[in-house]
Amino acid sequence: MDCIIRPAEPQDSPHIMRMIQELAEYEKITHFIRLTEEVLHRDGFGESPWFRCVVAEIPEMERSESGGPFAGYALFANSYSSWTGRTLHLEDLYVSPKFRGRGLGRRLMKKVAQEGVRSGCSQIHLSVLKWNHPAISLYRSLGAENLTEEPGYQVMNFQEEALRNMAAEEP
Amino acid sequence: MDCIIRPAEPQDSPHIMRMIQELAEYEKITHFIRLTEEVLHRDGFGESPWFRCVVAEIPEMERSESGGPFAGYALFANSYSSWTGRTLHLEDLYVSPKFRGRGLGRRLMKKVAQEGVRSGCSQIHLSVLKWNHPAISLYRSLGAENLTEEPGYQVMNFQEEALRNMAAEEP
Repeated sequence: MDCIIRPAEPQDSPHIMRMIQELAEYEKITHFIRLTEEVLHRDGFGESPWFRCVVAEIPEMERSESGGPFAGYALFANSYSSWTGRTLHLEDLYVSPKFRGRGLGRRLMKKVAQEGVRSGCSQIHLSVLKWNHPAISLYRSLGAENLTEEPGYQVMNFQEEALRNMAAEEP
Repeated sequence: MDCIIRPAEPQDSPHIMRMIQELAEYEKITHFIRLTEEVLHRDGFGESPWFRCVVAEIPEMERSESGGPFAGYALFANSYSSWTGRTLHLEDLYVSPKFRGRGLGRRLMKKVAQEGVRSGCSQIHLSVLKWNHPAISLYRSLGAENLTEEPGYQVMNFQEEALRNMAAEEP
């Protein structure tokens, strides 16, 4: 089974959305998902895309009738560091359970890295759940550092209500 | 002293670069700074900007000869969440020491939030050093949650060497 690793195309949106839901089930956070296929399609494949995506495409003769055409995906966005400039933010890396252990996560990461280098980035930044040992160990083996250990970064987030409250006041 | 909070303009680049260096001194990481004023200018004010910035401008008659025209800045980039869609990544929030305690950090955050809402974002995401209590307490008071506490996110990073090694191999 030799998947093709390629950039996602507009017609891939429904399959990417399905994998986003599968990943959310693994991370136990399906109740947080508010993204819809329509919004994903608009934001990823419109005129000024908000993210990029690469997919691992299963060869046609090896697809099952129940499953989709992809074994996994990586979703990432342009970001910026005031230390080093252009940065990729890796939002998701996902390989479907029955395709794990074949090096697809590693191949997807290499493709993401190529996209990053091509667009002038000098780092890839990500957040990962501390109990997700397979992901952490993959990132470690590819050379990632844990910035929460040292120098001690923590992740914070303003959800929509906090954001709207802030925006409602005159700065 | 009533600073004006406004979006940064191309001619502001040298002053923003100076404040980035001041912030790096506070964070004790000046040795990591590889960004130059030229690159900052290109990436922030070119055709497809990689970041956006808002500044707190000091009224002209209150500027000292030694200091620049700004009391602080916030630098942020478009990002994406596969749960909620369009997201702002807050990279830096900085207020110069002698202008602290006047609510400028809060005003800059409100401006960032307005920019976020205007471009369809539903959250602001950031990383902060765990010993930076003034920043953490500001973010908390504005409604931010600590995702490293719960559900337990840690920050990881591929620096340039790791990125180039990954990109050098066929995916």
